[in-house]
Order: sequence, then structure tokens, then C-alpha cells
Amino acid sequence: MKPLPILLVEDDENDVIFVRHAFKQAEIVNPLVVVQSGEQAMDYLMHKGSFAEEPEGPLPCLILMDVNIAGNTSGLDILRFIRAEAPLRHLIVLLWSSTSPPQAVRTAYECGVNSFLVKPSNTRDLLELARLIRQYWLEHNQIPAEPANSLGFSLG
Amino acid sequence: MKPLPILLVEDDENDVIFVRHAFKQAEIVNPLVVVQSGEQAMDYLMHKGSFAEEPEGPLPCLILMDVNIAGNTSGLDILRFIRAEAPLRHLIVLLWSSTSPPQAVRTAYECGVNSFLVKPSNTRDLLELARLIRQYWLEHNQIPAEPANSLGFSLG
Repeated sequence: MKPLPILLVEDDENDVIFVRHAFKQAEIVNPLVVVQSGEQAMDYLMHKGSFAEEPEGPLPCLILMDVNIAGNTSGLDILRFIRAEAPLRHLIVLLWSSTSPPQAVRTAYECGVNSFLVKPSNTRDLLELARLIRQYWLEHNQIPAEPANSLGFSLG
Repeated sequence: MKPLPILLVEDDENDVIFVRHAFKQAEIVNPLVVVQSGEQAMDYLMHKGSFAEEPEGPLPCLILMDVNIAGNTSGLDILRFIRAEAPLRHLIVLLWSSTSPPQAVRTAYECGVNSFLVKPSNTRDLLELARLIRQYWLEHNQIPAEPANSLGFSLG
């Protein structure tokens, strides 16, 4: 069975490059889908907008989102959207940010984030975190099942 | 600052011994508070019942619960209770079980579990998981802040 995608919501192009590199180094085999705004993230998850024409694939097994993405929709807004939509509610969402003010972290948990991380400031620490994400979330954590009819091409 | 407690909700005495041992081996320094039923877990978190007389300490930084604990209150019931109580909603809850039927896992995420794990069947795998819990949840993950007035003795 094809590994499920990981959705990265990140508007900083350098961070996207660093994450791609670290995930590859950490031997994460899941395809990385990158979107650059909250609107794009919601379109991808709901298969709307610019994603309506593409073949409908399975939902991501993990969503990694920057709290402070540019545009009108913050990482927290996307999290609230996901937790309010029944077909998406079960998705695993990790928020990360270069800073972690205590009240912002608390609010993220109150809104239902699975985990809140600090963005590593160098590639060595990012690789360590990528390895930990693989070991914890992709190897040990149990991923919520999708209803059979939404598995899409992974059953093909 | 004194490390925050970890709450273990587990009615199997052997599992409690195994977890204590693995956490010690994994160099987890947080005090492990053990309760054996859902009712006790709720009393501990709300500082009621048999815990009303004890000095009020800080809330746990992590809750590890067996899905299938004995008594009238399942792990899922405690999770729902935690997510419905504003002062507890932000707490990090890991459920684990010796089995992980897909629908049960999905329901746990829909009810707001942070992570769902399978109970390791031997002490070596349990030690590996304990190390991973320390690295991921206690070293990398950002813990939600408590309001200043609930920090209790940890400020003393």
C-alpha cells in the first residue's frame, strides 16, 4: 500500500527546502504535499478550488503547519476549520513556530492541536526532529482509519 | 522548577510495574501519579473525592491512559470529560491499548486524543517507547502553559 501523504503548510520557500531535505535524510517515504496558504490547505483537504480538477487522493496521515503563515488564514484558523469539519476532525495536526509564547501554545491545544513544536533553527536540529517525527508519528502512533470509500487510489 | 507529574490511568498492576520500570530506565524524571479507574482520574484532575484532602499540585504535563480500564468509565469517557471541561481541555492525552481496531482509533481522534499507541508486548519495546515518549513529548513538544494561579507548589 502506497504511503499516505504528509501535508506541509508553509509559505517560506527556504523552510520548504529545509523540510524536504530533512524528511529525505530522515528516510520519510511518504509523499510531501506542500501548500503555501491556509486557503490552499483547506482547498486541498476539501478537494476544492485549484485541487478540484486533480484526482482525489487519500487524506494526509499528518499535517505540519506553520502557525504564522501569510494571508488571511492563520495556522490556528485552519486547525479550527479541520476540527469543525466532521470528515476532517480526526486528522493529526502538528503546529510549529519559531517562537512558542505560552498563551499561544495553550490556545492551540484548546483548539485541538495534536502537538506543538518549535521550528529548529539549524539543519542538524531539524534532521533530529524529522527523525523523531518519523519514529513517533509514522512508526509508533496509530493513524486514524479512513472510511473505505475515501481511500481513493491507495486501494488501486 | 520541579518537573510536572505524568498521570498514568491503568488498572493492571503488572502494567503499572512495567511502566514505572521503563520510565525509570528511560530517565524520565517526572513523578508518575498512578490511578486505577476513570473515576479516580477525574477526581485527581478536579481535586475532588479522595484527592480533595491532599495539597493541590499542578496538572499533569502528560496523561497516559489505557482505553479499556475496568469500571464504568472507559478511557474514552475520561477523554471526553477532559475535552469538555474548560480548565482541563488543553491537557495532553495519550491513549493506549493492546489492540487498535481502526474504528476505535478513529473515534479516539474524533474525541480529541493527542496520540493513540499500541501497548508494547515486551519490556524491550516498552523501553523503546518510553524513550520516544521522553524525547518527543517531554523534550521537543511544547507543553501548554497553566494559568499562573494553578501552578501550585511548583512555584514555591
